[in-house]
Amino acid sequence: MIMGVLGSGMVAQGLSARLAELSHDVVIGTRDAEKLKGWQSSNQRVKIGSFAETAAHAEMVFNATNGAASLAALSMAGAENLTGKVLVDISNPLDYSNGFPPSLTVCGTDSLAEQIQREFPFTKVVKTLNTVTARIMAYPLEVANGDHHVFISANDADAKAQVTDLLKSFGWIHIFDLGDLSTARGTEAYMLLWVRLYGAMNTGMINVKIMK
Amino acid sequence: MIMGVLGSGMVAQGLSARLAELSHDVVIGTRDAEKLKGWQSSNQRVKIGSFAETAAHAEMVFNATNGAASLAALSMAGAENLTGKVLVDISNPLDYSNGFPPSLTVCGTDSLAEQIQREFPFTKVVKTLNTVTARIMAYPLEVANGDHHVFISANDADAKAQVTDLLKSFGWIHIFDLGDLSTARGTEAYMLLWVRLYGAMNTGMINVKIMK
Repeated sequence: MIMGVLGSGMVAQGLSARLAELSHDVVIGTRDAEKLKGWQSSNQRVKIGSFAETAAHAEMVFNATNGAASLAALSMAGAENLTGKVLVDISNPLDYSNGFPPSLTVCGTDSLAEQIQREFPFTKVVKTLNTVTARIMAYPLEVANGDHHVFISANDADAKAQVTDLLKSFGWIHIFDLGDLSTARGTEAYMLLWVRLYGAMNTGMINVKIMK
Repeated sequence: MIMGVLGSGMVAQGLSARLAELSHDVVIGTRDAEKLKGWQSSNQRVKIGSFAETAAHAEMVFNATNGAASLAALSMAGAENLTGKVLVDISNPLDYSNGFPPSLTVCGTDSLAEQIQREFPFTKVVKTLNTVTARIMAYPLEVANGDHHVFISANDADAKAQVTDLLKSFGWIHIFDLGDLSTARGTEAYMLLWVRLYGAMNTGMINVKIMK
């Protein structure tokens, strides 16, 4: 499948490399192609494009940009290039304006995922993977042999099913369907706990398992 | 030990009954003693008092009031009656003004626990148990044989150790020390995910286990 990954940070790089490893045709979209030249030399199967080129070329698009800049980045990608497509939103609305630990730019009554969905009503937004660090997103079996949960939220059932299959191909065993896109308010807010778990354990190689 | 539980809802009732079962001397503090008469008939070892009587009498105090009303309730309990004591805050700053699911009255940059600590600087506030339903607080072994986590946040190490021992007496096996009281921002915000887990699973008899 033709995958477009918007962003040039660790999350975008890790996800792009994993998608390429799984034999997808991958384009990484950035405002600063120079920044990715070094990385690309060891990831030659991944193409580099602008945000708009990446969105236009891809069949499925990933928002792996900084949450605080996601709406602007997606606007540069272009609504027309995202129309009818699945947009996997893995970003978080983290506000680092007062340093670490971050707060959220939106909390409780709305979510970044819903903001994106409202801005791009003809795109199928699926929220997932935002509750784990980049390495676990791509290689979930590296924590507790995969015995932990990833969450998924979306309004469109087909888009959710398609992304669920992709998560399985990464190795995800426990994929928790939280419901419609408004449930992303829960997973985005969970980041306030996640940063404290990270602080206490001094590693991001952690996740939660839902016990009943 | 003499335990004072502020509140008259399901959480306060369940906690009071459990503390009495563990042979503590328990007073439940309420603004409306009539409301608790029926309950008390099957929990005769628990005394009923006003907020102030309960706080004055107790060696350790639990805030099991509605989060939106906690500061007012604690003010009625009286700073002088709370001075030097451990106050276990198990409430959540849930805002139901727009119905279900709730949002939070405070998120990210502050927490209800810290608001209480600032208001009562001579009281040792310990945040815990707020991430699980009343039944699990008191009987953690009823979910997955206790193989799940409760979190604890406090500025005072002795108070934290004392409450940790109490949690163990309830049956808690995994007690996760998140750090100082500001980490309650994480566990309070987690409630936004919890209500969605509850919605998806249709039961509150769930909790998370931290996997690494």
